[in-house]
Amino acid sequence: MALSPSRTVAELNELRELTGDENGAQRVAWTETWATARKWLDKKLSELPVEKTCDAAGNQWFTLPGESEQALLIGGHIDSVPNGGWLDGALNVMAGVEVLRRIAEEGTPPVTVRLVNWADEEGARFGRSLFGSSAAAGSMDDHDELRQRRDADGVSLPEAIARFDVDLDTALEARSELENAAAYLELHIEQGPVLESLELPLGVVLGTFGVERHQVTFRGQAAHAGSTPMDKRRDALAGAAKLELELREIALRTGDGAVCTMGGVVTRPGIVTSVVETAECLLDQRHLEATKLAEMLSNAEAASRRFAEEEDIEVSWERIWQIEPILFDEALIELADEAVREVAGRSHRLPSGPLHDAAEIARAEVPTVMLFVQSLRGLSHTKLEDTDEAHLELSVQALDRLADKAIARVGSA
Amino acid sequence: MALSPSRTVAELNELRELTGDENGAQRVAWTETWATARKWLDKKLSELPVEKTCDAAGNQWFTLPGESEQALLIGGHIDSVPNGGWLDGALNVMAGVEVLRRIAEEGTPPVTVRLVNWADEEGARFGRSLFGSSAAAGSMDDHDELRQRRDADGVSLPEAIARFDVDLDTALEARSELENAAAYLELHIEQGPVLESLELPLGVVLGTFGVERHQVTFRGQAAHAGSTPMDKRRDALAGAAKLELELREIALRTGDGAVCTMGGVVTRPGIVTSVVETAECLLDQRHLEATKLAEMLSNAEAASRRFAEEEDIEVSWERIWQIEPILFDEALIELADEAVREVAGRSHRLPSGPLHDAAEIARAEVPTVMLFVQSLRGLSHTKLEDTDEAHLELSVQALDRLADKAIARVGSA
Repeated sequence: MALSPSRTVAELNELRELTGDENGAQRVAWTETWATARKWLDKKLSELPVEKTCDAAGNQWFTLPGESEQALLIGGHIDSVPNGGWLDGALNVMAGVEVLRRIAEEGTPPVTVRLVNWADEEGARFGRSLFGSSAAAGSMDDHDELRQRRDADGVSLPEAIARFDVDLDTALEARSELENAAAYLELHIEQGPVLESLELPLGVVLGTFGVERHQVTFRGQAAHAGSTPMDKRRDALAGAAKLELELREIALRTGDGAVCTMGGVVTRPGIVTSVVETAECLLDQRHLEATKLAEMLSNAEAASRRFAEEEDIEVSWERIWQIEPILFDEALIELADEAVREVAGRSHRLPSGPLHDAAEIARAEVPTVMLFVQSLRGLSHTKLEDTDEAHLELSVQALDRLADKAIARVGSA
Repeated sequence: MALSPSRTVAELNELRELTGDENGAQRVAWTETWATARKWLDKKLSELPVEKTCDAAGNQWFTLPGESEQALLIGGHIDSVPNGGWLDGALNVMAGVEVLRRIAEEGTPPVTVRLVNWADEEGARFGRSLFGSSAAAGSMDDHDELRQRRDADGVSLPEAIARFDVDLDTALEARSELENAAAYLELHIEQGPVLESLELPLGVVLGTFGVERHQVTFRGQAAHAGSTPMDKRRDALAGAAKLELELREIALRTGDGAVCTMGGVVTRPGIVTSVVETAECLLDQRHLEATKLAEMLSNAEAASRRFAEEEDIEVSWERIWQIEPILFDEALIELADEAVREVAGRSHRLPSGPLHDAAEIARAEVPTVMLFVQSLRGLSHTKLEDTDEAHLELSVQALDRLADKAIARVGSA
């Protein structure tokens, strides 16, 4: 029985029928539909000689014992956002299933191979993404805060996860799952436009961006739009406008995939007869290198102060959130590049803007790499999310090649 | 009995005590407090030999018959916005009272002199400003729409005005009041920062700005802030930012008091993780010359289209409101300049951003001019609205001088 990438596509369609509706995928973690998807996955693996376990954080493990306890992990997440796409997370899991089948068919592998279906990557119901992988990585903290979280219907997170035998008090016991982990692989749709614009089916992910998120508030003076001459104005919106345009220059000057976004502006009083008194701007800056990210932030701060001075207004910064860049393993990146070239001719290395379970595993110092497959129109988290079937099949082949190379590497270490 | 400008200040303080509270003036038109102010005004004039009438639009007239039926009108409005200032409108009326006293004291004037207290200049309760003056000018229209208007408590405009014996069906009969009008004078606080910045107490108003108001909507494409490279973005906010900055250049290039304002921007989806898909901008452009106003609008439209092309986004314009510029009478502007120079040494000519009852009277082709007195910090429509007492007294003197000059001019015509 050889690898059958077309079976992966068929199974993804089967899962879509089982757990989606006319609005898209509905496999929100800790719901009945998610439970249905997990049972369906379990059944898909019932004919393989794998041990099935569920860890203390709700992650599903399928372990094919090898000659060594050293383990290659292949991961994904079968949960989705509400009205989500058919591929985000599920592709990773089902491609892993197919690779596991091929390896099992060939007999006992030299190293242990484990497929993991991470619990609640999306955080759609309780706003806590990467739940299962952060527990396994040991980076999940602030349990008191998590205990307070409730969904839109008022159900608490502890109540919801208890129905799946998960308890915040013991969730971190999932850390033991990574004890013998020697490498971690994850395939994912790109969720961006880069591979499509390069007309490439596949790419290798260098790591996940570090992120700096701030609210930047410019404060000027409300004044009558009719009776205040242009040279008497202290227009907060002018500061915001200059920063919006300068942010793009900062990203371009920094290069190496840098992105800076002003995602929104709220103007007050925000009426047609008044100069804007305050403009609250949402800023998001991302880079794969910590020093360049810090430099971008510092440049944006300096620019905002310069603009405030030019406009005789004030500016203040408040951090909303930040995370450091997480770099994937250089040796595995090389192997992934080889695998992609073998199945698709050309490869491309790119950073990941969105976070993934792989970032948590890399933070736990397990050598990690991801493969991206092209997304059509860069869309995800919508039923319009899609990828060419031919590219999906190529992605299963590339993951399979990469798994073989990683097994060889782990086995020889 | 000579002119007593300090009495005007004392009477304005008396009115403030009678009809204001800790939040400011409460003389909203068609309310009990407004009725109280009108009765108080009526009593202030009880010792003068004036005919007191109320026209079909609720305007209060105080007529001092002269040797000729040709009439000089002096106008103001005693109504205020809720939590308003003590001077906006009331100064005009009370300065007019003082001038009328002085003229009456001197015996029968060569021309008839009439003080008018316009009804509902502010439109604070039903959103219809310049109610009484537009009825007298004959420009009030769309009665069907006015009939539907209701205040915040659900009371209809017809109900509210009926309590003051005003009926929309007959309100335009107020037009007859302007039949013999040969000149119209109005004193007002500037409500802007120009005179204060020039350290001048008084100025002469050239006319009221023409106004073009539009909603300008830029439409790009929402895209993930992390996974969308800078060169793949179609950022609607970039169009808005460029237009905000260019608008100021357009106003400066046009000159002659031109003002352009982006009063607000609404961004959608407006979240930190997405490039802005739509940016809805509120634009207000004003100029005293119709051709320059049209040129500014056309320049802004052209700029917005250029920016849309540069950013690969779309732009659309929707007119919210417009009014043509209204120019005051050149001969009266000369006389007003003389009057201001006589009492304050220096004069300054400036346009009015806000509309005033005077604009309605000028549209009705009655030769019209306004005087502005300095506003502290440009504030109005707030209890913080204020003017130096010395400047208030100068403004009463200037109005008095101007009235004399206008009487001489009307009498000799």
